[in-house]
Amino acid sequence: MVGKIKIVGFAGSLRKESYNKAILRASAALVPPDAELYIFDLEGIPVFNQDLESSPPKRVREFKDRVKSADAILIATPEYNYSIPGVLKNAMDWASRPYPDNSFKGKPVAIMSASGSTIGGERAQLALRQTFVYLDMHPVNKPEVIVTFVSQKVDEKGNLTDEGTRQRIKELLEALVDFAKKIS
Amino acid sequence: MVGKIKIVGFAGSLRKESYNKAILRASAALVPPDAELYIFDLEGIPVFNQDLESSPPKRVREFKDRVKSADAILIATPEYNYSIPGVLKNAMDWASRPYPDNSFKGKPVAIMSASGSTIGGERAQLALRQTFVYLDMHPVNKPEVIVTFVSQKVDEKGNLTDEGTRQRIKELLEALVDFAKKIS
Amino acid sequence: MVGKIKIVGFAGSLRKESYNKAILRASAALVPPDAELYIFDLEGIPVFNQDLESSPPKRVREFKDRVKSADAILIATPEYNYSIPGVLKNAMDWASRPYPDNSFKGKPVAIMSASGSTIGGERAQLALRQTFVYLDMHPVNKPEVIVTFVSQKVDEKGNLTDEGTRQRIKELLEALVDFAKKIS
Amino acid sequence: MVGKIKIVGFAGSLRKESYNKAILRASAALVPPDAELYIFDLEGIPVFNQDLESSPPKRVREFKDRVKSADAILIATPEYNYSIPGVLKNAMDWASRPYPDNSFKGKPVAIMSASGSTIGGERAQLALRQTFVYLDMHPVNKPEVIVTFVSQKVDEKGNLTDEGTRQRIKELLEALVDFAKKIS
Repeated sequence: MVGKIKIVGFAGSLRKESYNKAILRASAALVPPDAELYIFDLEGIPVFNQDLESSPPKRVREFKDRVKSADAILIATPEYNYSIPGVLKNAMDWASRPYPDNSFKGKPVAIMSASGSTIGGERAQLALRQTFVYLDMHPVNKPEVIVTFVSQKVDEKGNLTDEGTRQRIKELLEALVDFAKKIS
Repeated sequence: MVGKIKIVGFAGSLRKESYNKAILRASAALVPPDAELYIFDLEGIPVFNQDLESSPPKRVREFKDRVKSADAILIATPEYNYSIPGVLKNAMDWASRPYPDNSFKGKPVAIMSASGSTIGGERAQLALRQTFVYLDMHPVNKPEVIVTFVSQKVDEKGNLTDEGTRQRIKELLEALVDFAKKIS
Repeated sequence: MVGKIKIVGFAGSLRKESYNKAILRASAALVPPDAELYIFDLEGIPVFNQDLESSPPKRVREFKDRVKSADAILIATPEYNYSIPGVLKNAMDWASRPYPDNSFKGKPVAIMSASGSTIGGERAQLALRQTFVYLDMHPVNKPEVIVTFVSQKVDEKGNLTDEGTRQRIKELLEALVDFAKKIS
Repeated sequence: MVGKIKIVGFAGSLRKESYNKAILRASAALVPPDAELYIFDLEGIPVFNQDLESSPPKRVREFKDRVKSADAILIATPEYNYSIPGVLKNAMDWASRPYPDNSFKGKPVAIMSASGSTIGGERAQLALRQTFVYLDMHPVNKPEVIVTFVSQKVDEKGNLTDEGTRQRIKELLEALVDFAKKIS
């Protein structure tokens, strides 16, 4: 790798004030000095239709191109119904298909989740890891970042203010960058 | 229950010539005499946005209403990236949210999958079952219907012609209707 | 069913002062009046060897017979390495095999977990539910019982003293008995 | 790493003529020239009891020591009840516990499965991967080795004779050794 390690991040929620978007935004300032984070908003990616996979909509092409350019992937995801949000899985389904290939192939990946209560994200993260096997992605194991009671850790402007959480995300990003360097 | 057992079915693929749509269409003629199948096409359900969940788009409201009216649910799903298609999970996420509540609550459910190769659907079906715990749905266990090499079992008009497969789907539908009667 | 609903319960830990054994013991006093709980200790069940499955050790035969006699199953399980304890899975593997058949077939089942920390049991319970599909068991969905910070809820003699937890287990047992009656 | 890459392999079945033992034995001759495979038989590892974890039985200590000495892990596992065999999970539970620590920590790992029918191992492999997250192991994704109709691929002495299967295992071992070198 020449230059900075490029991390591409996206959140599994389209909600405007999404807490998962908030921890993703906060991550930009927490990446190691030799890395940079580009955030891609999944807004505008329509539901997947295999009939269109060889000539996907513009926003899907942008997503695929951005993912392909990445040295590492960062996913911030809520848990919906004990699994991956459909919105997130849908974007990943598009990016895994021809035109011309699986954009995720061989990429290292880290996951984090924000939740309003005591737990939330554990099951979604495991369900997401299951897809990484087929997608041939290499997930970081530790630290596992699940930000509980997140509303108490973010200010009214959506900034992540909790120092412990910021530190944990910093460690996850360091682990991701280290792993990316090793397996590149 | 008065009158026929109402089964509502949907497929986890929007592809026009989807094999999962094909086995779902075939199911209509295979339901027990005291039941009927209504097929809902997920086309037109946009990606989920929690900001809109209390006043969802029209097609989502129609889906929720149809699901709520059902005595039993039938899902035909392909497997994408070792998990549930985003398209399917997305529709279920909408239907699980307020306006005014989780439409799936307490419903018995059966799953079937069509696949072009020797396997395909096993992992998606397990991933789907995981969501049923949160959604409080009651899945039928047997027979498990995974139609392999499906292109050899469907004619050029998309009719399911393979007699063994038709029989297996018939048994699944009988099991679903029996289970629905027991737990209602 | 004639007479009381027979629930057979077992814990996925052999530790003498196991908290999962503690919540299982407490359950005996919390079953509905028309049911009774028999607790089977997995101690003495050796590791599974398929060469012995048609003439299993005595303790395995006792386990199989007890399970077969049950109208419903209750499992109290810790989480080991994000999954089912080997000890528990091993006993279930024995009971699922010939001599003469899968003892669990068709049984309703409820799960509960005790954990020393804020979470613990969520992933084990999902992993356990995955086996129920093959075993053809019918799991109760709600309430989900995961007793966190359990050491604060049990006295020095291992009695479950926390009233909220006792109530939640009571509701789980009622749901199990109701479900057993419906699907019998 | 100095000297050969040490791979430690074990099978999730105690059956004397286990097909998973057979593909593991065959692997010894298929490792890359700069690696070697040591096979550990799980026979003799008793069921786990947390009361004994700080002074485990001799065979468990041998297993832990062997695992700790490994540069990479190879697991050959059948699928029992849509999940990991209890026998295998039990041995891994022992090795994950203090005395003095999780022996698997940081190890790269590959999985393979032999099955008598068209499928078998897909669900066990996913369930096993779930434990790797907690154990902090790094699984190889591809190629996925699931040897179907294995009885046709092994001779009467238990030797794996099928050339295609041998090639696929060879590729898995190469991928494991490559991955071990990268992440060491």
